[in-house]
Amino acid sequence: PTASHSAANRPSYGSLWPLPQKVQMSTVVFKLSGASFQIVDAKESSSGASCSLLQNAYRRYFEYIFPSARKQGHVKKKTPASAVSELQVWITSADTECDGFPNVTSDESYACFSVVKDLFIMLGFLDDCYHCLICLLPGLETFSQLVYEGEYGAKSINRTEISDFPRFAHRGVLLDTSRHFLPIKVILANLEAMAWNKFNVFHWHIVDDPSFPYLSRTFPQLTFHPYTHVYTPSDVKMIIEFARLRGIRVVPEFDTPGHTQSWGKGQKDLLTPCYSGASPSGSFGPVNPILNTTYEFMSMFFKEVSTVFPDAYIHLGGDEVDFNCWKSNPDIQKFMEQQGFGTDYSKLESLYIQRILDIVSSTNKHYLIWQEVFDNGVKLKQDTVVNVWIGNKVEEELQKVTEAGFTTILSAPWYLDYISYGQDWQKYYLAEPLGFKGTDAQKKLVVGGEACLWGEYVDATNLTPRLWPRASAVAERLWSDKDVRDLNDAYSRLAQHRCRMVQRGIPAEPLFSGYCAYEYKGV
Amino acid sequence: PTASHSAANRPSYGSLWPLPQKVQMSTVVFKLSGASFQIVDAKESSSGASCSLLQNAYRRYFEYIFPSARKQGHVKKKTPASAVSELQVWITSADTECDGFPNVTSDESYACFSVVKDLFIMLGFLDDCYHCLICLLPGLETFSQLVYEGEYGAKSINRTEISDFPRFAHRGVLLDTSRHFLPIKVILANLEAMAWNKFNVFHWHIVDDPSFPYLSRTFPQLTFHPYTHVYTPSDVKMIIEFARLRGIRVVPEFDTPGHTQSWGKGQKDLLTPCYSGASPSGSFGPVNPILNTTYEFMSMFFKEVSTVFPDAYIHLGGDEVDFNCWKSNPDIQKFMEQQGFGTDYSKLESLYIQRILDIVSSTNKHYLIWQEVFDNGVKLKQDTVVNVWIGNKVEEELQKVTEAGFTTILSAPWYLDYISYGQDWQKYYLAEPLGFKGTDAQKKLVVGGEACLWGEYVDATNLTPRLWPRASAVAERLWSDKDVRDLNDAYSRLAQHRCRMVQRGIPAEPLFSGYCAYEYKGV
Repeated sequence: PTASHSAANRPSYGSLWPLPQKVQMSTVVFKLSGASFQIVDAKESSSGASCSLLQNAYRRYFEYIFPSARKQGHVKKKTPASAVSELQVWITSADTECDGFPNVTSDESYACFSVVKDLFIMLGFLDDCYHCLICLLPGLETFSQLVYEGEYGAKSINRTEISDFPRFAHRGVLLDTSRHFLPIKVILANLEAMAWNKFNVFHWHIVDDPSFPYLSRTFPQLTFHPYTHVYTPSDVKMIIEFARLRGIRVVPEFDTPGHTQSWGKGQKDLLTPCYSGASPSGSFGPVNPILNTTYEFMSMFFKEVSTVFPDAYIHLGGDEVDFNCWKSNPDIQKFMEQQGFGTDYSKLESLYIQRILDIVSSTNKHYLIWQEVFDNGVKLKQDTVVNVWIGNKVEEELQKVTEAGFTTILSAPWYLDYISYGQDWQKYYLAEPLGFKGTDAQKKLVVGGEACLWGEYVDATNLTPRLWPRASAVAERLWSDKDVRDLNDAYSRLAQHRCRMVQRGIPAEPLFSGYCAYEYKGV
Repeated sequence: PTASHSAANRPSYGSLWPLPQKVQMSTVVFKLSGASFQIVDAKESSSGASCSLLQNAYRRYFEYIFPSARKQGHVKKKTPASAVSELQVWITSADTECDGFPNVTSDESYACFSVVKDLFIMLGFLDDCYHCLICLLPGLETFSQLVYEGEYGAKSINRTEISDFPRFAHRGVLLDTSRHFLPIKVILANLEAMAWNKFNVFHWHIVDDPSFPYLSRTFPQLTFHPYTHVYTPSDVKMIIEFARLRGIRVVPEFDTPGHTQSWGKGQKDLLTPCYSGASPSGSFGPVNPILNTTYEFMSMFFKEVSTVFPDAYIHLGGDEVDFNCWKSNPDIQKFMEQQGFGTDYSKLESLYIQRILDIVSSTNKHYLIWQEVFDNGVKLKQDTVVNVWIGNKVEEELQKVTEAGFTTILSAPWYLDYISYGQDWQKYYLAEPLGFKGTDAQKKLVVGGEACLWGEYVDATNLTPRLWPRASAVAERLWSDKDVRDLNDAYSRLAQHRCRMVQRGIPAEPLFSGYCAYEYKGV
């Protein structure tokens, strides 16, 4: 396939991504004039000008549709005949929490009645909508995707009716800021692109072995990085607010007891001293699970984290705990004996994790954990979300986790850091989260998935083009109907969607040979 | 390895890339002051202020070393004690062709006597240097790599003696502007980065099946692309001049008879009509080798090309000719019969290629061709350069080609478009061009190699970070001594070299976890 993707040969329908649940598009075309078009609150709407989330979203989408500047205020020209004058946004819900945060139970359903009467467009919401301010955002994105450049470059829209809702509630992107620091600018740009793809969770793998860029108010000594490579409290706050305005939750991950080498640099006695024979080797292993000081530290630390991050969930990690260091340490050996654990170090891990879960529960947060914690038989509270990531036996794992009654998030098929030659987006696109054997009740426990871009080989120089549009494939799998899986149709829409991302300023890489009407302006 | 690469822990020697042939560095450190330091022509130098190639290079390297602005002219402050006041450039050759083009016989040897006496630095050249204006450029690059930020960020340089020359004369990068158009800005940025890596050939695979962005004065109708996606004659001129100022040759490739689908759109009867049974199928194959009009067209076309591109070489392609269309065409069948070729279509290819070689020879150009032309037994002139690209049996191919007495360029181990997970730069780094069995005379025929980044999956959004620093691995293999192949040492220098490229504004991707003192400022 050597398709070329110019605006000229673009079907007015063909750039919707992810594909809405229901689209009825007619061939009747209306024009939109940048000089007169407005996005406004409908008269009947229960929310309005005082809500900055709404006003910011209106401005943002106006700019996507009409990138060139226009004077603010009432310079409104008479709308030409057969042109659309307004997008009216109609919030029906009484619950218009403008300052609230998106939530896993947020209803993102919306209905988009394009050009129903009198040449204006209604963007409304289903009657049972609880968080309409949130569901507004995917609706606006879809609306902006409906506008295309018709004859003479005129902004055009077809008469269309859409009703839409996501298939999965949790649609995340994992970024790793420990293996490489990501400047704020890069994080914000990718939050933008996430919103264009209707992702609603930023899984922030913020610290890990190589570095601890999270600047803790309580334990600032944990951050050994140069000051240029640190997220200050106000950086974190800004990222959370930027995400909130785009309907995106920020779920931080503080992974313990493994993946904590960087923690040990600033916090004495937190990590287990490894032994070489009878004496300490000088290197350190996972968090030391047998000291009271460990749990005192963790209590204070997670208390801070629970206030800094407003989301109801914290990701607690728990993956890849290497038992060798614990095994080498005589104090730990003695402790194992006292507890009657024999040589089963997963029992020691279990003990540690349970105390951490209790600590975090006491801050009124829910938590996610990587699958090993479940696999190792750690006793988990029923509201724990198990994050499935190990690449083999994925379906068996999903079966087991849901059989045990746990909610689960699937990441395994979507490790975007594993690059390969060719159109690997197809592999991500065709992965089916509910392809395992199980009852309907089990399937309902799969609440979503995440595209993971681990940080070994990406930083500000290459992260963004490596993430987009490969993550977009995951976005459609998690949003659209499960039967939307035709690769040719997807190729055509995705090629246009990636050109739209490029036009909006994000260096999304090409799927294959071809070109965009508006190429990327950077290097 | 999770090495971090800050300026602080950087050994003053450790960022040289590619490693010079001979470096003697002492621990004596001198400082350079941005307020007083100058790059100037030595009194004894045979070239000077009238040469814009020199003056441009001085300014460029001054800016790399001192990125912040300084007033032009004689604001020179007194140089502080123990600081270096000048870099004196001493051109010994009488042949100071300031306006000439670099050439495959250009001598790039240089000697860099850092801080020899009276606190200034001499950058001079070997006595047998023919094209000293060219060899100056790698010398300046090395000089700039010697400067580092010492205590308090002070620009510092160690007393050093270097003598240096490239192992191979032809050190190229292939970029493909047909599968994706590359904006001028992207090409120029990558020419800059090529110079930092001492690459000296830009192999411009300018047209191919998907598009013909080269705007021909003689045949403008060949270019069917939108006007935004075209290289005009002045664009081409600018690219060639930009390259020349950096010691880089521009070798264009006009690949025939295959890879020419785009040519056929604008030039009637140029391509072979394919047949389905007794009638034309509507699709077209390679260039039609049996019509006189074909050769009339090619004569005019290559006459133009030979004047637009000043380099002594043109790459004529000749790869992957699919014989199926020729086989299907009754006129071609008849011609084969008349010629007594039987069913050996490589004889037909041979006939075509020989005529093209004659045409190009008559314009006084030399040429490169892809290996199939040699493999298929086409009779070649002795000055033909064979470009080896097929990934299996590389050593046998090099053996055969050089046994037949042909000069050769190796591209096969360096197809950078084939991405994979992990540190694939190591594979490129360890590839040894002279690893095949052959006499010394045969080895001498291997004049260099090329890093190839074909365009299926890269455009302005992702080309630059995908090329650098992976191509840098090839650069060192082609420049430095063959025994320079220690991966740990290379990792450490290359990590710093990539941070230097980032600091100079190129989004070179990371090798592995870590960070740069100056991160990339874009997205």
